[in-house]
Amino acid sequence: MYDVCEWRHVFKLDPNKEIDDELLERVCESGTDAVVVGGSDGVTLENVLDLMVRVRRYPVPCVLEVSSIEMVTPGFDLYFIPTVLNSTDANWITGLHYEAMKEYGELMNPDELIVEGYCIANLDSKAAKLTGVQTKLDAEDVAAYARMTGHLLKLPVFYLEYSGVYGDIAAVQKAANILRDSDTTFIYGGGIRTAEQAKEVGQYADVIVVGNAIYDFPEESLKTVAAVKK
Amino acid sequence: MYDVCEWRHVFKLDPNKEIDDELLERVCESGTDAVVVGGSDGVTLENVLDLMVRVRRYPVPCVLEVSSIEMVTPGFDLYFIPTVLNSTDANWITGLHYEAMKEYGELMNPDELIVEGYCIANLDSKAAKLTGVQTKLDAEDVAAYARMTGHLLKLPVFYLEYSGVYGDIAAVQKAANILRDSDTTFIYGGGIRTAEQAKEVGQYADVIVVGNAIYDFPEESLKTVAAVKK
Repeated sequence: MYDVCEWRHVFKLDPNKEIDDELLERVCESGTDAVVVGGSDGVTLENVLDLMVRVRRYPVPCVLEVSSIEMVTPGFDLYFIPTVLNSTDANWITGLHYEAMKEYGELMNPDELIVEGYCIANLDSKAAKLTGVQTKLDAEDVAAYARMTGHLLKLPVFYLEYSGVYGDIAAVQKAANILRDSDTTFIYGGGIRTAEQAKEVGQYADVIVVGNAIYDFPEESLKTVAAVKK
Repeated sequence: MYDVCEWRHVFKLDPNKEIDDELLERVCESGTDAVVVGGSDGVTLENVLDLMVRVRRYPVPCVLEVSSIEMVTPGFDLYFIPTVLNSTDANWITGLHYEAMKEYGELMNPDELIVEGYCIANLDSKAAKLTGVQTKLDAEDVAAYARMTGHLLKLPVFYLEYSGVYGDIAAVQKAANILRDSDTTFIYGGGIRTAEQAKEVGQYADVIVVGNAIYDFPEESLKTVAAVKK
């Protein structure tokens, strides 16, 4: 089984975005630790399956980050399941999970399920609006969610999601300090598009996620792998 | 450190209820695995401290089950922190925990914090009303919450709370089956007042909680210890 706590870098690919075979090959063979398939807008079972099949041609671990029950399909190595800790709507914390457990629980292999304690830190993002996160979030708040994840719930992953924007490094650093003496892997996502940014965040986060940049700045974003893996 | 997964029986004492020294001694020396201090109505820091000091005269492990931030005090062996998985109100799942982490997180020892994935199964109880739990809950739903706790969130404890009434044995059995192949300890609470009930629930639950009965039927309830520990 793949061990997330040994990872340093992942690419997140959006099933609703086009990627040509050549770039996909470079992503999958970049030396990244995993390719995560995930997105929110326009994600369907069909485009998830399509992308999975294409990634599966390469030996890189292939993970599905589940944002709706409809997109779940067997065939991935791991399933990342977010629970949005700073949501004010119970549905995004345990509600949808309850429905998924009720409907598909028996079919799932617990060893393949990795819960992510999510903190959505870009309050203007679509994800923030969709999940109804708290309307105020400073570095102290991020620290409190990191602590909740690592010291109280003791979840395998704390996912700090700046969704499209480059994060507040002071908050990243605080979260990392808290999680250092826990078994929780600290994943950072949001706005990384250069090797310098990857290196900066990678000093603190265990794993950095490079998402949109792969579509917008492919050359630069491929360099983020070496930036954190050296 | 005390290991909840080796326990079979606990007494839960309410800081807001009177208990004389003689009965308290019999409870603490009954052979139970722990005394849990917890309640909801009229719990204050003062009556929590008072009860803690009295229980501390005996070598039995002494646990605080936290239902409000105000009642938290150092001095207990462990702290049980419920997260009400079937609540529809985010405050009872992660909201209060976030506040506690923000205010007291640095002072807490993660090794002493045990999160309980709570399923409040008596929908007419005060606890159900207070926490705004879902308005329908059958054995399949209980099973889904057990699965969420044991297979998805992988929390240390699943707490099935019938709060004052004796539970649905079919639901208890289903939950136990699901949790058998997990690392989660299954704690059952609600309506146990006889050795027979203790034995029946104890076939399935890892730990049974005897609460109100200690006040109302002390002789009979003291027999529940031997009923599950044999």
